[in-house]
Amino acid sequence: MKSGLSFLIAARRCEINDLEQLTRTSALVNVVGRLVHALQKERGISNVFLSSRGARFAGQLPAQVKECRQVEAELRASFDHLDTDAGHLSNGARLFSRIAFVLHELDALPDLRQRIADQAVAAADATAAFVKLITGLLAVVFEAADSATNPEISRLLVAMFNFMQGKEFAGQERAFGAASFASGQTDSQSQQQWLHLIQQQERCVQVFSDFSTPALRERWQNSQAAATLAELERLRRIACSAAAGALDPNLSQSWFDCCTRRIDAMKTVEDQLAADLLLLCDQKIAQARAELQNHQMILAALTSQTAPAGGAERLNPAVMPYGPHLDRSILELVQDQASRLQVMSDELETARASLNERKIVERAKGLLMAHRKLSEEEAYKMLRQTAMSQNRRLTDVAEAVLAMADYLAAGTP
Amino acid sequence: MKSGLSFLIAARRCEINDLEQLTRTSALVNVVGRLVHALQKERGISNVFLSSRGARFAGQLPAQVKECRQVEAELRASFDHLDTDAGHLSNGARLFSRIAFVLHELDALPDLRQRIADQAVAAADATAAFVKLITGLLAVVFEAADSATNPEISRLLVAMFNFMQGKEFAGQERAFGAASFASGQTDSQSQQQWLHLIQQQERCVQVFSDFSTPALRERWQNSQAAATLAELERLRRIACSAAAGALDPNLSQSWFDCCTRRIDAMKTVEDQLAADLLLLCDQKIAQARAELQNHQMILAALTSQTAPAGGAERLNPAVMPYGPHLDRSILELVQDQASRLQVMSDELETARASLNERKIVERAKGLLMAHRKLSEEEAYKMLRQTAMSQNRRLTDVAEAVLAMADYLAAGTP
Repeated sequence: MKSGLSFLIAARRCEINDLEQLTRTSALVNVVGRLVHALQKERGISNVFLSSRGARFAGQLPAQVKECRQVEAELRASFDHLDTDAGHLSNGARLFSRIAFVLHELDALPDLRQRIADQAVAAADATAAFVKLITGLLAVVFEAADSATNPEISRLLVAMFNFMQGKEFAGQERAFGAASFASGQTDSQSQQQWLHLIQQQERCVQVFSDFSTPALRERWQNSQAAATLAELERLRRIACSAAAGALDPNLSQSWFDCCTRRIDAMKTVEDQLAADLLLLCDQKIAQARAELQNHQMILAALTSQTAPAGGAERLNPAVMPYGPHLDRSILELVQDQASRLQVMSDELETARASLNERKIVERAKGLLMAHRKLSEEEAYKMLRQTAMSQNRRLTDVAEAVLAMADYLAAGTP
Repeated sequence: MKSGLSFLIAARRCEINDLEQLTRTSALVNVVGRLVHALQKERGISNVFLSSRGARFAGQLPAQVKECRQVEAELRASFDHLDTDAGHLSNGARLFSRIAFVLHELDALPDLRQRIADQAVAAADATAAFVKLITGLLAVVFEAADSATNPEISRLLVAMFNFMQGKEFAGQERAFGAASFASGQTDSQSQQQWLHLIQQQERCVQVFSDFSTPALRERWQNSQAAATLAELERLRRIACSAAAGALDPNLSQSWFDCCTRRIDAMKTVEDQLAADLLLLCDQKIAQARAELQNHQMILAALTSQTAPAGGAERLNPAVMPYGPHLDRSILELVQDQASRLQVMSDELETARASLNERKIVERAKGLLMAHRKLSEEEAYKMLRQTAMSQNRRLTDVAEAVLAMADYLAAGTP
């Protein structure tokens, strides 16, 4: 019959198993981040190439595609290494379903690239296809962050997800701006969209900052070269305060280079975050293993001290298995563990609160899709435009939509 | 290289695995419920026995102890069947840690029983020891409810946990009332405590009702025999409106019998709930298996239709693996699965909201323990007495304590 102590040890083993799984997920997140980075660059280059009708970046495109393919192969290998047969992965159903979507989109990439090379696709449509794939990749990171059972690791994963999301908004701004400059045109609607992309970046970086370590925050501050920022803000000002249709196409290259310097600098912060994450996982595993060993030693000591002569008597629960002194120390172990898990669960809830904001937006989108018969993209656009026109946060608009759920449902036949 | 479809199938397998685990947990919850029921009766009998200085229930005690031991052996066997070695159980760390506590308390039970038989323990202390063990057993049910990943099963587990908790308050009322009647004494403080136990029962039954099925609600209504309820309310009125020190000890037996009839009737509802839970798990597993088979058939059909002659080409991601028509149907499968998982996750969050209330109380308790150097019992007593004296819900008081966290922390050296 299993003793209380053996369940204490089993609880520790579960924790170690969860941590080891987090290490694998963190490694996966790292590769996802690198593919996102490469795709963001390909998206930007493709955008300038298409918007300039093939006049710009024709030479840079093949090299970037090659880089993307290499990282894609790495990611596919990482996916292959995931233990899909066991079915034991916590949050596995959601993670695997996100991966299925990513693989589907990756399979469609060669065809998209052919159409870009042939200039047989509009810049906006090419961007939309890349955005869809990158959104899918970020959803994989989101599920990884949502599955973490250790609060400190969860905090870093939340910081990571928000930083990657912020970097993606920076990438969208680069593509959007590059296309705007290259086309030589702008209007008040696209200026508003541009400003919204800036706001979304700032919001994500704020969450990253809240959940990050002081060292990472400092690294983020230092990564932002003053000259790059000044140039970025100057070009933003020119584009967002220009009269309709009055952009200088020659600024496209400066804009792209300046954004790229900034995004590449963001990538170094992301790399540091990824390294910190793996280090933290290792530390937590080492710590949990040391504590497990400690428990096992106590168990061994107790069993040897209390083993009675008769085997049958040992199985009789009526016999107090340990002396009153040892019994007390076991109770302390049990209570320590329970309250430690309680504290962890509380901290975890705090870390996940920011992920819930995203879930609220997803839910509002789902509601609009169901009751207004919209596509996912249309639903998101509707939410975003409401946020933009009312100058409110996306989450607030999503919450308002959810609060109106009954009214929306009542309107359908 | 694994395809998107193979990850879709892996996601399904994870769901099935989660459901099978829920079946095992639900079976465990069933045995826990039976042990709680038996222990509640032993607690009540012990209480009358001790309060009447051995005059009452001396004959009934050994039979009840025997019954408890049988169910305890069953529960220990269930614990032994849990797969503690794999470390794969989701929420395993928390569940196993709760079980470790339960086993520790079960080991101490024979000693307590000896002291009860010897009348070497006060009725209140014996009750407190039983309450502690039963609270530990209910914490196991709580973790089971908290680990459910299927919203419908989660709803039933939430209903189950609250019903068991409500039944435990009914059991505490039986023990408390039996001791009060047997002692022939009451005062305004114990009357207030009595009324609070009634309120707590009603609150739990309300949550059970909210999360239950119509059939179960009806069964609950029908289980409450009018005659028993009338007798219960009559005795409650006598006890709670009596002047201090003026209870008829002869009513102890009627009170105990009347409460027992009611609690036994509650047990039939709980049994139905447990049976419904297992049935629901089976249905969900059958459904998930059918859908998995469906996916596998589609995968087989697709692979046979699209297998190219050259093996190498098949691995080249540049080749669109399926025709545009089939490709579209795969995308629909992927999107269906993703949105289904999203809906499940939203519903799950709703079901778990009621469990969060309990977590708030636990957190407030932890805060008081840390900053006021109180034991767990003292912290809970402090919260409960504030709730009683201010006539507020326990959760509201707990939330107020958490809101004051900074002030509490500032007061410590």
